[in-house]
This record gives sequence, C-alpha cells and structure tokens, in this order.
Amino acid sequence: MLKFEIIETDNKARTGILTGTHGTSKTPCFMPVATAGAVKGVKWEEIEKSGYSLVLSNIYHLYLRPGIELIEKTGGIHKFTNWNGLILTDSGGFQVFSLGDLMKLTEEGVYFRSHIDGSKHFFSPELVVKFEEKIGVDIGMVLDECTPYPATRDYALHSLERTYRWAKRSIEARTSNKTAIFGIVQGGVFEDLRVLSARLTSGLPFDGIAIGGLSVGEPKEDMYNITSLVTPLLPFEKPRYLMGVGKPEDIVVAVEYGVDMFDCVMPTRNARNGTLFTRNGKLNIKSARYKTDERPIDEECDCYTCKNFSRSYLRHLFAAKEINALILNSIHNLHFYGRLLEKIRKAIKGQKFSEFKQEFFANYKVDKDSCYYNL
Amino acid sequence: MLKFEIIETDNKARTGILTGTHGTSKTPCFMPVATAGAVKGVKWEEIEKSGYSLVLSNIYHLYLRPGIELIEKTGGIHKFTNWNGLILTDSGGFQVFSLGDLMKLTEEGVYFRSHIDGSKHFFSPELVVKFEEKIGVDIGMVLDECTPYPATRDYALHSLERTYRWAKRSIEARTSNKTAIFGIVQGGVFEDLRVLSARLTSGLPFDGIAIGGLSVGEPKEDMYNITSLVTPLLPFEKPRYLMGVGKPEDIVVAVEYGVDMFDCVMPTRNARNGTLFTRNGKLNIKSARYKTDERPIDEECDCYTCKNFSRSYLRHLFAAKEINALILNSIHNLHFYGRLLEKIRKAIKGQKFSEFKQEFFANYKVDKDSCYYNL
Repeated sequence: MLKFEIIETDNKARTGILTGTHGTSKTPCFMPVATAGAVKGVKWEEIEKSGYSLVLSNIYHLYLRPGIELIEKTGGIHKFTNWNGLILTDSGGFQVFSLGDLMKLTEEGVYFRSHIDGSKHFFSPELVVKFEEKIGVDIGMVLDECTPYPATRDYALHSLERTYRWAKRSIEARTSNKTAIFGIVQGGVFEDLRVLSARLTSGLPFDGIAIGGLSVGEPKEDMYNITSLVTPLLPFEKPRYLMGVGKPEDIVVAVEYGVDMFDCVMPTRNARNGTLFTRNGKLNIKSARYKTDERPIDEECDCYTCKNFSRSYLRHLFAAKEINALILNSIHNLHFYGRLLEKIRKAIKGQKFSEFKQEFFANYKVDKDSCYYNL
Repeated sequence: MLKFEIIETDNKARTGILTGTHGTSKTPCFMPVATAGAVKGVKWEEIEKSGYSLVLSNIYHLYLRPGIELIEKTGGIHKFTNWNGLILTDSGGFQVFSLGDLMKLTEEGVYFRSHIDGSKHFFSPELVVKFEEKIGVDIGMVLDECTPYPATRDYALHSLERTYRWAKRSIEARTSNKTAIFGIVQGGVFEDLRVLSARLTSGLPFDGIAIGGLSVGEPKEDMYNITSLVTPLLPFEKPRYLMGVGKPEDIVVAVEYGVDMFDCVMPTRNARNGTLFTRNGKLNIKSARYKTDERPIDEECDCYTCKNFSRSYLRHLFAAKEINALILNSIHNLHFYGRLLEKIRKAIKGQKFSEFKQEFFANYKVDKDSCYYNL
C-alpha cells in the first residue's frame, strides 16, 4: 500500500512523503540505480548516509540474473539484497526495446532474447506485475513501449495507445496492494500525443504516474518542453516520476515543474569514468591539473571521499586503474545528488525554491548541450 | 625509529609489538597489500576494523605512478593516501627482476623499463633507501636480487653475495632513523646458501630481517624447509618477516618457526576471483551449489559481508560482474586473515599455540599442493 502525502508546495514544486511497504522517502527524491540489486561500488550504509531510502532496480535484469524464482525463494528482493528501504523496479521495457533484432513486439507482449546468453523469453504486462509482486518490490513500473527517438507521429501514437492498453491490463493483473504500480506517459516529442497519454494514464487507478520516453536522445529543449507540459496534467495528489533523468540541472528544472521522483545512472556511471560533480559543475579527475592538488573534490562536500582524500590521490587511483577510484568517486557523486535533493526539499519548505534555483545556476556550470538558458 | 618488543613466547612462536613512526602493530601480523597506495576494493576504516595497523606498499609501483616526487610534494605517503597506520614498502626488486628482457642488472644497480610505458629507469640500493625516506615509510625493504626458481647453486650464490653487498650499501645510504630498514635473506632453495645469507644479513645493523625469494614457484616442501631452517638463525630480538607468504596454512606453520610478519596478495586477489576463505577452507562462490544458499560465507565470521549478505547474493553479484562482488569478497577475505592472526596471537599468549594449530588443521581443508602433513 503506497501512501503519498504532499507536505509543502512552492508554486508548482512540492515536497512530500512517500510511504511504502518498506519505509518512507521524502520527495522530491533521486533514486540511486541498483540494476542488478546493488548500487555499483557503493554499500547500502553509504547510500543511507547520503540521504537515500528508495533505490531503483530492474525487472529485466533481475529476471535474467539471478531469476525471479530464486529471489522469491530466498525471501524476496529486500532479504536477498539486504536493502532495508524502499525499492522501485523498472519493468526493463526500455532495455528490452533496446534489443533491436533480438526483440519482437506483439499485442500480447514482447518476445526477446537475453543479452547474456541469447536464450528466448517473453514479457507481458501481466507477467511484469506478477514478477514485481513475487519479489516484493514497493513500487513496480508497468511494462510500456518506450517510444524511441526519433519516431514518426504515427508510430508514437500507436505506441502510446498500446502502452495504454497494456496499462489497463497491468492494473487488472494486480493481486496485492503491497506492491504499488505506476503508469507511464509516452507520446515521444509530440505535444498533443503527450497530452493525450497524460490524460489516459491519469484516468487509471495507478499509485503514481511516470513520464517515460525522455532522455532517449531527443534535444534537451524537447525534454524540458514535454516535462513542463505533462507534469501539471498529472494528478496533483499522486507522485510524479521523471524516468531516467538526469543531470543536476535537469533535476532542478523538473522539480520546478512539479516532478517528485528521479533516477539516473549518471552519478555512478560518471564516477566510473572519472567525472565528478561539484557545486560548480563537473570536474574531470583525470586532468593533469589535479596532479598535486591537495584539496578535496568539493570543499563544501561532507562525503566520505571528500573528508578523507585529495584530488591528487583520487587522480592517482584513477590513473592506476584501482577499483578504489570507482568506489570513492561513486560515493562522492551519489552524495552530491543526495545533498542536492536535500537542498531542493529545504528550499521548497522555506518557499525559497526560486532563490535556490537562481543560486544553483549562478554557481553550477551546466553542460554545453543544456538548453536551460534558452527556455 | 623502529622498536620491537617481544611480549610472549610459546616455543619458537612469539608475540610482540612493533612501534614505528606512525603507530604500532601487534605481531605476528599479516600486512594487507596496498601496491599503489590503496588496498584494492577496501577502505582504510575496514582495514582497521579487521585488526590491521600495518600495510604494505611498493616502491617500484609508487615510483612509476604517481612518482616519488609527487608523494613527497603532497606531504608524504601517509598524508597522500590518508592511511594513518604503519607502512612498509617493498623495494619492488621482485617486480623489477620479473621484467626479464626489460631489465639489466649491474653491480651498481638495475636498469629497467617501465611496464606501463616502456620508459627507462634505474634503481640502486642507495636510491631505494632515498625514495623510502623521501615518502616517509615506517619500514623500507632494501633492494635485493630476488633469486628466481629454479636457479643453479652458482647463480644463487652470486645473487646472495650481491644482495649482501647491496645490503651494506643500503645501510650506508641511510640518513634518517624515521624510516627503519630491513635486510633480506636470499639463497634460493640451497640450505647452505640460506645459512650463509642468514648469517651475513644478521650481522648487519638492520631493524629487522626478511626471508625473501620464497613463494616464487619452488615446491612447498622447500618453502617450509628453508623457513624452518633460516628463522631460528635470525636475531631473536629483531622482527622476522617472511615475504610474499601466504596461504592461511603457511602462516600458521611459519609462526610456529618464529616468523613475525607476513604479506600476500592472496586474500584480495582470491576475493576478486571469487575464492573466499572460511574456517573450513576455501569456498568458490561461483559454484552453482550456492545459488540459493542463504547462509553467510562463514557463520562464525563477524565481517561486514558475513553480517549482511548471503552466499546466494554474493554468487549473484559475482555472476553479474558487479564491482560490489569484489568489494564484499575482499572485505571478507582480509577480515578472515586479520582474525586468523588475532587467534594466533591469542594462542601464543595463552601458551596454547600447539593446540591452536592442531584445531586449525583439524578444521581447515588445506590446498592439495600443501605439504603440511608431509613435514
């Protein structure tokens, strides 16, 4: 049973508390990605220390390895992973639809071959709900057809219609309210289709609504435009989740539109590539300029990495290909995101989100492809 | 200034306290390997929790990356790595002599090419001592010629003679007593040469003596035989260090001969290969038999990994190639070694080393190549 309580609002931005079977999470929140049941390089206790109580996993990955039955047999996803907070699982539709020739879509569901061993499998909306209930996740995402970019208007229309039919089947398939189910808005970059999908999905008795199919290669303008268009059309009282987003600047902007939940591989993946987040923007630890730099990554950061190690040491570990580089970088980046969301919640609470945003963008050097200033 | 105090003895086995510039370590001790200034996959706080206060690093590796000058400039090895305990550095002679064609040995020292970029370098006994003093290690090993296996008696004799001449030059090169210097006994598998080398090395004013050139491919019998022969010939009042050893069973046996210090990549390297240590012997976490095994690696282990995760989950993480598998396995294996040494010290203190050893071998399934029972 999922409960969502909105605590404060500041224009369209809001703070809230999400209560599921395994705990609560303050919103707006960012969900660290634990694709295979572990946040790469980071321990659960470190996840908690950075302010997270809700993580994301992936049914497609868990289904292939270690298998839904195995997780069920060993007591469910929480016992198996020993993560004692909330878990949301993506259906893995995005991963399945990325398989290209290894995937065949029908009205009934999707046939696909494993990216691991080529074995044949089938996912339907009903099966995905069943898997999510079996392993006992707190929030399960429905199986949707993630519309690729670019796609024709026709394709996007058919795709969102199918996603809607699948959404209804997903709701029919539910057998327990221990696992909440979120619907997903599709429609590509077509405004009218997004409005249609938002209205259709909002009309169904979901526990929350996600905006899917963004951050899939479309221009930043479209991502911001669609998010700002769709978010206010979603039920006010339900949690709103912008899937796969994103950069710190994207999160700040989307919170202003009224989004409550985010997930992205960026903090951990960037960490493994040597890209670290600071209040002033990204920092490439591989750069020779940090060779003898004795400062921490970010002097205002209170993460384990910043409290203990210099840029010089972190650069050395990365150059020497030490696992510890990935670990320490990942801890920092996730902490940065955790603290960012904490600041966002505090700003909304104090009715100062607009000031916060202004200050954030005054300090943070956004990526070149960011269209924030063009909006 | 290194101080070594022997606290208790139990036949030839002894416990002691080693006090260096950056703290103390109880002996017998095992040194986790931090080749490049980090124990692969494990944080310093976890190293401390497993009872370690002395780690091993490597001058050859640090010299090539990040460089001796850089470490000196950023405040020395302790400040650079933020490890606040004792550090012993191997000279890297073993690594240099493994370079084969990329290495040229002269009486003056050894010319070699970097395994990283092929650049040309030169190490001499004097330079190694200088590097060790520059970065401020607590204990520096002399540059020696690590006699390979197999080697002719003639080769081994010339090699130990050179090692002796270099040992004298190393002592001459010292400029500070903040960095203690250990000599190294060589002589291959030739008993008379080992006796000669032990006597020569013991005659020099070193702070401790190591037995080198074992665990380099020779039969186990030779390793045990040479260690049991050499150890009692070394000065009683100085710490004795068996380099690169070893397996849990090797450590137990060598402690009985009177060895005080050990190092080996085994706990961390095995961890990364999925081999875990338990009180009953090694366990291969990749095995299908652990698929749904909800027990920890070792039910009597109190490490972070065993207190939190099942064999089933660890097997899954390893199969899914998650970094966390390496991290959690490494934490466990180092904890196992840390606890083993703790038990060894306790047994010696209680004059019960012989009972401890008997119990250890009654439970622990030794490797097939171990000759323990043939001794």
